[in-house]
Amino acid sequence: MTEAPSTLDFWYDFASTYSYPAVERIGAAAQEAGVAVHWRPFLLGPIFARQGWTDTPFKLYPVKGRYMWRDLQRLCDSLGLPWRRPSRFPQNGLLAARIVLAGAGAAWCIPFTRQVYQANFVHDRDIADPETLAQILRALGQNADAILEQAQHPDVKVRLRTETEEAERSGIFGAPSFTIGAELFWGHDRMAQAIEWAARGARKLTCDSAA
Amino acid sequence: MTEAPSTLDFWYDFASTYSYPAVERIGAAAQEAGVAVHWRPFLLGPIFARQGWTDTPFKLYPVKGRYMWRDLQRLCDSLGLPWRRPSRFPQNGLLAARIVLAGAGAAWCIPFTRQVYQANFVHDRDIADPETLAQILRALGQNADAILEQAQHPDVKVRLRTETEEAERSGIFGAPSFTIGAELFWGHDRMAQAIEWAARGARKLTCDSAA
Repeated sequence: MTEAPSTLDFWYDFASTYSYPAVERIGAAAQEAGVAVHWRPFLLGPIFARQGWTDTPFKLYPVKGRYMWRDLQRLCDSLGLPWRRPSRFPQNGLLAARIVLAGAGAAWCIPFTRQVYQANFVHDRDIADPETLAQILRALGQNADAILEQAQHPDVKVRLRTETEEAERSGIFGAPSFTIGAELFWGHDRMAQAIEWAARGARKLTCDSAA
Repeated sequence: MTEAPSTLDFWYDFASTYSYPAVERIGAAAQEAGVAVHWRPFLLGPIFARQGWTDTPFKLYPVKGRYMWRDLQRLCDSLGLPWRRPSRFPQNGLLAARIVLAGAGAAWCIPFTRQVYQANFVHDRDIADPETLAQILRALGQNADAILEQAQHPDVKVRLRTETEEAERSGIFGAPSFTIGAELFWGHDRMAQAIEWAARGARKLTCDSAA
C-alpha cells in the first residue's frame, strides 16, 4: 500500500459570493474523500480587468446580478447555511488575502478565512476594515498587530501577485475554482466533482504503485 | 386529494451547449418527480445583444470558452451521455426553434428537439441546414415539407419573438433556464433544484387545498 498523494488546490477571492458556501463546506467534504486541500486566496480583479471588465460581472450585467442574489439565497437555504445579503458588494478582499498568505499555512488561516466570509455574508461587516480583520485574529488567539504588519510586507504583496498570476495561467477566470494538476473546475457547483476527481486520481496512483 | 398543478417552464436555445444534457435528462427527471414540463424554445441572441454582446460569451471570453468545452466533456462523461465537440459553434438554431413552435405541442416536438441537439453535439451536423431538420422530421414519420413551410409562417416568426420577449421579461439571460411562476433557475446545474421546487410547490398546493 502506498500513501495516496491526493491534493486539491482551492482558489478563492474574498469578494466572491459563491466562494462562501465553498469555504464553509470544502473542509468536511474533502476530509470525507481523503483529499488534502491547499487553500489559495487570489485576486479576481486583475483577471477580470484583462478580460476588459472594470467591475464584477454581477454589476456589469445587472440581470445576472439580480439572479445571483436569489440563487445564492436559495442555495444557502438548501445547504442550511446562514446567509444575509451584504450591503456592500463587492468588498475589497486585498488585506484579508494578504493576511492569509502572511499566515503561511498556520492553523489559524482556515478558521480566519471562514470567519471573514461569515463577516461579509452573514454579519454584513466591512472586511476591508483592518479592525474587522484584527478582531477575527484576536478571537482566534493571534497577535493581530504583528500579523497585520506582516501582511503589508513587500514579500507578501509579491506573493499575492504571483499567486494571482498562477491562477490566471491555470485558466482560472472566476471563483471559487479548484485545480488538480492541469484539471480545472469552476464554481461551488463543481466542488464535489473536483473532490471526486482528486480522490480518484489518488486511488489510481495507489493502484499503479501497487501493480 | 387534489390533482397537483406542477408545471415547469423549460427554456432552451438550440445553440446552447449546456442545454444538451438538460434536453436529454429533463423528461425522465421531471416524470419521476411528478412535474409536467412545458418545452419553450427561444433565442438567446437578441437577449445577449441587449447586454452588449455581439456573440456568445464563450467566444467573447476565450478562456471561458476553453473551460466550457472541457467541463461539458467531463459532465457528459459523468452522465453517460454521448458527446462530440461540434466543429461549428455556435450554430444558428432559428429554424429549429420555429419548427418546434410550428409543431404547437405535437407529440413529435420533444423527440425532434432531442434529435436536433444530438445532430449538433453528437453527430456534428449542420442544424441550420433545412435538410438536416427535414431528415429528422421524416425519420419521426412527419411531413417535413409541410412543417418546414409552416415554420416560415409570419405567425410562427412573431411567436418566437414573443417567446423570446417573455424569456427576457422573466429575467432569463442564459440557457437552459427553468421557471416556475416568478422563480428562475439558470443552467443544467440547477435543473434538479428547479424540478424539486416545482414538485414542492405542487405538494404545498395540494396540502393547502386539502386543508
